[in-house]
Amino acid sequence: MTIHRINPTPRWSDITVFQGIAHFVEVAEADTRADIKGQVGQIFAQAEESLAKVGSDKTRVLSVTIYVTDFANFAALNEVWDAWFAPGTAPSRACVKAELANPELLVEMAFVAAAGKAYQ
Amino acid sequence: MTIHRINPTPRWSDITVFQGIAHFVEVAEADTRADIKGQVGQIFAQAEESLAKVGSDKTRVLSVTIYVTDFANFAALNEVWDAWFAPGTAPSRACVKAELANPELLVEMAFVAAAGKAYQ
Amino acid sequence: MTIHRINPTPRWSDITVFQGIAHFVEVAEADTRADIKGQVGQIFAQAEESLAKVGSDKTRVLSVTIYVTDFANFAALNEVWDAWFAPGTAPSRACVKAELANPELLVEMAFVAAAGKAYQ
Repeated sequence: MTIHRINPTPRWSDITVFQGIAHFVEVAEADTRADIKGQVGQIFAQAEESLAKVGSDKTRVLSVTIYVTDFANFAALNEVWDAWFAPGTAPSRACVKAELANPELLVEMAFVAAAGKAYQ
Repeated sequence: MTIHRINPTPRWSDITVFQGIAHFVEVAEADTRADIKGQVGQIFAQAEESLAKVGSDKTRVLSVTIYVTDFANFAALNEVWDAWFAPGTAPSRACVKAELANPELLVEMAFVAAAGKAYQ
Repeated sequence: MTIHRINPTPRWSDITVFQGIAHFVEVAEADTRADIKGQVGQIFAQAEESLAKVGSDKTRVLSVTIYVTDFANFAALNEVWDAWFAPGTAPSRACVKAELANPELLVEMAFVAAAGKAYQ
């Protein structure tokens, strides 16, 4: 089976796909000083782009691990989260508190998703 | 390939399955004030129910990520852990310290497991 | 589908493989007092051994979750990291700060990789 990698750099690939399963990790890229709602919104916009690159979309997310730097942001995070997923398509979800490498970042999300047919 | 989701809510699905691989996350539900052994016991009881819902059982766990809030509870956690898995069936395991959203919770576990034949 | 487990103990298996996908977790084993570069080097040497045991190699890593205990070690970690992966083969990567059970350990890495043909 082929491994597909989207935009590999020396440090990471934006997405890897094997056996039809995609792995990718998102943090806010355009505006790292945005508040939690702004950062979650950026992550979801980036995730939609990432999913499209492997023939998938936001209805095919299997698992998300959320690393949040402060649970004071939890309610606002959940508000944006709950609004993003189409009914009946929410993934398995873990959420824990963790510091991130860039102290401006308030949240990092690791996604596992089902890729499109061309990747299976 | 079909994605199977067990009990999807707006925020998460209790279990997702794709390509025969199940993702689910457990924290103590019935008694969040239980001590570490009580919480791990609840997590394992819930995990057995989750596994049964996708035609699997506790001999088919592939990977567990353990988020524990205090390593003072590590020995007691391991005692319950070691007793639960049948000989020769323990998964790959990561264990790190992390705060959880509900401060009563002492441990959260993210499971990856092999689902039953109907899900492959 | 068969689940393959390498060296199962009562607490964990060194590697699990299902549907051609391997899960394994590494921390420095030979010298837990080594500095960050030494510990990352040990983890990568161990990962090469683990990958070989399931018919794979370091060009087939899909995802790594890095738990680092102190971001003061981040630049040195990345230096060893960037040198290890062959061009075009870096995985999806998440990196967060987390305390580990053994306070001598500076980093733990959870790998998901594509196993060799005999495991698919």
